[in-house]
Amino acid sequence: MRTIAWSEDNGGGITLMDQRALPLRTEELRITDHKDLIVAIKELAVRGAPALGVAGALGVALIAKNAERESWSAELRNEAIAELRVARPTAVNLAWGVDQVTPLLSQGSAAVLKRALEIAAEDASANRAMGKRGADYLQGITPHESLRVLTHCNTGALATTEWGTAFGVIRELHQRGAITEVFADETRPLLQGSRLTAWELSQAGIPYRILPDGAAASALFSGQIDAVLIGADRIARNGDSANKIGSLAVAVAAHHVGVPFLVVAPESTVDRSLKTGAEIEIEFRDDREVTHFAGVQVAPSGALTYNPAFDVTPARLITAVVTENNVYEVGRGVSL
Amino acid sequence: MRTIAWSEDNGGGITLMDQRALPLRTEELRITDHKDLIVAIKELAVRGAPALGVAGALGVALIAKNAERESWSAELRNEAIAELRVARPTAVNLAWGVDQVTPLLSQGSAAVLKRALEIAAEDASANRAMGKRGADYLQGITPHESLRVLTHCNTGALATTEWGTAFGVIRELHQRGAITEVFADETRPLLQGSRLTAWELSQAGIPYRILPDGAAASALFSGQIDAVLIGADRIARNGDSANKIGSLAVAVAAHHVGVPFLVVAPESTVDRSLKTGAEIEIEFRDDREVTHFAGVQVAPSGALTYNPAFDVTPARLITAVVTENNVYEVGRGVSL
Repeated sequence: MRTIAWSEDNGGGITLMDQRALPLRTEELRITDHKDLIVAIKELAVRGAPALGVAGALGVALIAKNAERESWSAELRNEAIAELRVARPTAVNLAWGVDQVTPLLSQGSAAVLKRALEIAAEDASANRAMGKRGADYLQGITPHESLRVLTHCNTGALATTEWGTAFGVIRELHQRGAITEVFADETRPLLQGSRLTAWELSQAGIPYRILPDGAAASALFSGQIDAVLIGADRIARNGDSANKIGSLAVAVAAHHVGVPFLVVAPESTVDRSLKTGAEIEIEFRDDREVTHFAGVQVAPSGALTYNPAFDVTPARLITAVVTENNVYEVGRGVSL
Repeated sequence: MRTIAWSEDNGGGITLMDQRALPLRTEELRITDHKDLIVAIKELAVRGAPALGVAGALGVALIAKNAERESWSAELRNEAIAELRVARPTAVNLAWGVDQVTPLLSQGSAAVLKRALEIAAEDASANRAMGKRGADYLQGITPHESLRVLTHCNTGALATTEWGTAFGVIRELHQRGAITEVFADETRPLLQGSRLTAWELSQAGIPYRILPDGAAASALFSGQIDAVLIGADRIARNGDSANKIGSLAVAVAAHHVGVPFLVVAPESTVDRSLKTGAEIEIEFRDDREVTHFAGVQVAPSGALTYNPAFDVTPARLITAVVTENNVYEVGRGVSL
């Protein structure tokens, strides 16, 4: 089952693997109304910057199809697209996916869908390319034959259409027999690491351990990690990278002990309109994500939280940004 | 209600505030058998280095009392004490509390109990002293009239007998009108921050927010924190400090951005037999603490974890260690 796909059943719609149900159940979510897609994006039934890019493009295709069938006004259709485009603010890919296909609206919904499916296919091949490029680069800079790698959040098939970004590098290294073990940060508050990454690692037969986010520094300082691989939701021209909250803490610790720290993401994640990460808008999420755990209240009633969905790792703490096209050694001052 | 106390009811025993039930319920645990105390320590119904010191001393008093009443052999009594002494390995205070009163066994259980109660009283007054000392020091080195402070785990009344260590400094600063807000790390896996520290902050009327551990670096890098205050479970002679897992990540981030990082703990936490933190034994805990929450599975079945209870922050990342007797600027090479 793919993370996100188009299905022609029942007049056409988007099928998602509902990531809220993992790792205990694999459930398919069928979406035929863009409002349901927006809810699915906000509630992280689909998430991960590259997957959101595809969701944006397919979402416009869905809107175009429904607009044609139900004879919406152009205004109504454009409002729907605008609403989809901003469902989550930090990942540039969602807006990018929407913008890639919007110019084709005048050619009809079939043309929009065709381009959206091309974007999905391009994402899959870009993943393979950055997997190889990242593995080559990492093997070039490390003395180790087999690596103990730490990752944060989920950058696997569930965050893309298949394969993965940082996780794609791990898959490629695993195919080369060069992975000893993966340390997967659980990634609070939403546990994408323990729920999603661990599930993908177990499916792929890659040895792994789950750790509390706060334990990553301990693993790094005690010499148990050879490299850190993470994804990104938006990358500024200078290499400053926004990624899931908790990435920055890992980056500072890795930098302190001299462990390579790689950001792996498609070119569509790079926002060259931003000079530095200071310009990246950070999404803040609901207190309840922190004050409740699996539906159980774990904090005093009415507790406030500090719950940014992302943090920005300065380029100086990043060894390199790896895309499908290039390896940018941003820590040495190279820009994108 | 005190965190830990002695009660003469029903032949004498220890009463604990059961920290497993907080923040939703305050439950009293009455302990009349040392085996139940060991379970309570292992399951963190009572926790926090200073509170464990008192638990160790009162536990020996309980053993002595039961040994007298039930005419145990000296061997049986000593075995019980030895088992209590190692219920948790990292916090030096537990063994310290046991060792403080054991020499009095030959004088009878009443003498043991008297000394154990003195230790509890001394802990309370030591807390007040380190609170004042820490507040004075911090106000001396910071330009801010009112502080935004970040803390990790729980170092409050629940970790001591009353008042607190790092939390005691916060209480003292709050009494001086010098606390703007406290950022309380939730502290995975056992959520001592959101369950216990947040509860104590709300009880004390101190403004606070709870944050995922991974968000502390974001708060520090974005200039929202003026000082970090944490406790310790064991401190080596050079100032290397073992504390709840996740402390090290905060220390590295604070050091990187130049925010003062203070360790506040009683002298009984200092283990001068250890030259550096490399000699501190770290307790590893059950996978299930990470893979399950409140009985809900959040990771694939059979997932392994990396779950150390503590990490060791090198002295070079610590601005100062504050005890009831002294402020040791260990980051400048001062030893204890």
